[in-house]
Amino acid sequence: MSESAGNSRQGTRLDPWLDTYAARAHNLRSSEIRSLFSVVSRPEVVSLAGGMPNIKDLPLDDLAQSFAELIRTDGATALQYGNGQGYAPLLEMITEVVQYDGIRTPADNVVITTGSQQALDLVTQIFVDPGDVVLVEAPSYVGALGIFRAYQADVQHVLMDNDGLIPEALEEAIKDCVAAGKRIKMLYTIPNFHNPGGMTLSAERRPSIVDICRRHGVLIIEDNPYGLLGFHADPNPSLKSLNPDGVVYLGSFSKMLAPGFRIGWAVAPSPIKDKLVLASEAAILSPSMAGQMAINKYLREFDWYQQVKSFRGMYLERCEAMMKALQDYLPQCTWTVPDGGFYTWVTLPEGIDAKAMLPRAVTALVAYVSGTAFYYDGRGGDHIRLSFCYPPPETIREGVRRLAGVVKAEQELVELFGTNVRPDESSTRSISIPAPNQP
Amino acid sequence: MSESAGNSRQGTRLDPWLDTYAARAHNLRSSEIRSLFSVVSRPEVVSLAGGMPNIKDLPLDDLAQSFAELIRTDGATALQYGNGQGYAPLLEMITEVVQYDGIRTPADNVVITTGSQQALDLVTQIFVDPGDVVLVEAPSYVGALGIFRAYQADVQHVLMDNDGLIPEALEEAIKDCVAAGKRIKMLYTIPNFHNPGGMTLSAERRPSIVDICRRHGVLIIEDNPYGLLGFHADPNPSLKSLNPDGVVYLGSFSKMLAPGFRIGWAVAPSPIKDKLVLASEAAILSPSMAGQMAINKYLREFDWYQQVKSFRGMYLERCEAMMKALQDYLPQCTWTVPDGGFYTWVTLPEGIDAKAMLPRAVTALVAYVSGTAFYYDGRGGDHIRLSFCYPPPETIREGVRRLAGVVKAEQELVELFGTNVRPDESSTRSISIPAPNQP
Repeated sequence: MSESAGNSRQGTRLDPWLDTYAARAHNLRSSEIRSLFSVVSRPEVVSLAGGMPNIKDLPLDDLAQSFAELIRTDGATALQYGNGQGYAPLLEMITEVVQYDGIRTPADNVVITTGSQQALDLVTQIFVDPGDVVLVEAPSYVGALGIFRAYQADVQHVLMDNDGLIPEALEEAIKDCVAAGKRIKMLYTIPNFHNPGGMTLSAERRPSIVDICRRHGVLIIEDNPYGLLGFHADPNPSLKSLNPDGVVYLGSFSKMLAPGFRIGWAVAPSPIKDKLVLASEAAILSPSMAGQMAINKYLREFDWYQQVKSFRGMYLERCEAMMKALQDYLPQCTWTVPDGGFYTWVTLPEGIDAKAMLPRAVTALVAYVSGTAFYYDGRGGDHIRLSFCYPPPETIREGVRRLAGVVKAEQELVELFGTNVRPDESSTRSISIPAPNQP
Repeated sequence: MSESAGNSRQGTRLDPWLDTYAARAHNLRSSEIRSLFSVVSRPEVVSLAGGMPNIKDLPLDDLAQSFAELIRTDGATALQYGNGQGYAPLLEMITEVVQYDGIRTPADNVVITTGSQQALDLVTQIFVDPGDVVLVEAPSYVGALGIFRAYQADVQHVLMDNDGLIPEALEEAIKDCVAAGKRIKMLYTIPNFHNPGGMTLSAERRPSIVDICRRHGVLIIEDNPYGLLGFHADPNPSLKSLNPDGVVYLGSFSKMLAPGFRIGWAVAPSPIKDKLVLASEAAILSPSMAGQMAINKYLREFDWYQQVKSFRGMYLERCEAMMKALQDYLPQCTWTVPDGGFYTWVTLPEGIDAKAMLPRAVTALVAYVSGTAFYYDGRGGDHIRLSFCYPPPETIREGVRRLAGVVKAEQELVELFGTNVRPDESSTRSISIPAPNQP
């Protein structure tokens, strides 16, 4: 294909560019569940897999009227390019939203991004060289792991329990990395209603986590998409509020309003904010003005906090349905009991492999995400993540009932063969990594 | 600040994280014009600097009604997460749009992104390792140079003339790189109504360019945001149509409709498309469903091609006003005569430094972009880019009149001092790089 020796490429018939990709491109993983996805999205399958918020209860007629007014009266601005940092009135509104997390910030420290996913991508881009350590919880958000993988980070998991990240484990992980001569760039943490864990970092531990990172010069990335969706109380004080200069805080409208605009944000110390804006301008020029102005109008004209409170009640009801169904149908499992958010983290009976079980579960018309998706290192096969955000309570119950049938059959297999991988199946056939296009 | 030797950081009081950034972060350049931007956007300044399309003539009332209907009837989908590749009906519509460029493609080879800027960012991410060569025209789009800089590419400019990229110059540049042992990853080119050059790659040269790249195994990135905005005829056959397997084609709704949704796309060979989807999912999960569905509805319910034709007439009128004003007021300059698009590339009289002149121009209430912004290597100070897309014809004329006064004063300075940098000014004070948040 090439006549120039210095630019020769091997390639294959399937992909002539195979030899041309950047090193980082080889770290992009295919979503093994994709082939399953058309099945999972069939209406007869109960999906306890996805992290899609339930937005059916939004006042769609009112929103439609509001957006129409926006385009009619301010369309030439809403349909135009914006600036890289974000639409000023929305930056202001975000400073009000984050006050619920105890954060007082000037609007100038906020950067608006294409979902908070892009904010995490940009933070990683400006901090992580290949081989740098990123500390994450064990388990951690699959979409974050995907970003860290793309930037060739050395991801180290740190133990959690029901009160969230364990300070002693964090201190030890840092010391181990330092002793091994590794360069730690940041701690990525989801303190509230963890994805996938469901637990919340206790108020008591928060100052310790902040203090440990401060002492070791480790930047904290605090990802808080579910923070306002606590069932019983306002959230614990954010890590950002405990050390504004040492924390980049990521927020999102995807769960408190809707993900369809892809509008999230970061609140960052000024020098980091400056770099985030430059990196975002290079990547996308500017975030969507239409999306930003629609959300700004919603926040100003609707009682958004009342809407959030109504979401809380709705998700609480679904969480309770999930807990009750687990008690009734899967007493041989254990699970976390969330105080908010979308997920519970279920420990399977010994010997069951969550990856190997998934195709069988889908055949039984129920879907989950294997725990292996939330680890960088292959662990997690003894866990599954169940989400209670999208299906209504009675469907959640039916999904857990179906899952219980599958687990029971797997347990019988384990008793027979000592494993739930059937003799005629290669373990590589199994499916674990969810399509990362939802949380 | 740190107690762990292995993770010690220097930092400064201004930026405690200074020592922590990734190598690539140091390649993010600050927009020197930013401090001037508040001035430029004052209504009394005629800006011939920006690349904002004129969208005031869009049927805003009809669009408002269409979007309202979308949210009302399909809001639960439009406000939800989508998939990483893009909304299927819009992928289909894009295959129809690119037929105007002679491209026949299955929808599966299209990827929708946050503006075509993100598509270029992703292509660069998956192909360019630090030090890899990216060939670009001389001059080239400032926003592309910003991306290549962020990925630490070795950017090599290739000569253009009024018929666009010169095949012999391309061949020579490739041979020079190969002889120097460099690894060429791609040619980035804007064949139609070049930004900033204004010229169009001739139909005769297109097969040569494609052939040279094919022979040397160099991937072509064909960026075509202005392709449908030719004044006189449909565009020349795209490079993509001449070699579908060797070209990644980038398109955008920003100029043919509006930039406010930030929706662009790439058409790529299948293996590259697969990697683009994975990279996009890692970066943003999915593009905005609200934006995609709004555009899909627009394309299906409105006579979008008629709208494009009306844009052509409007921009032609502005281009003619610019040409006439240049003839009348700046006969001592030369400039390109565009057949479409937004820009003309003006050569200043000898001795004038476009960077040094800019603050004086803004004081005279007219703004442009210095040619230096469009080179990676400091060249371009003898050129300016003037855009005729945004101000109406009479304002364009007035802007050029003001500019002529500034140029005349500069010429007098050059005659007196042999330079237009005033004795009391450091040349580093001058301002050249535009805020990259518009084309």
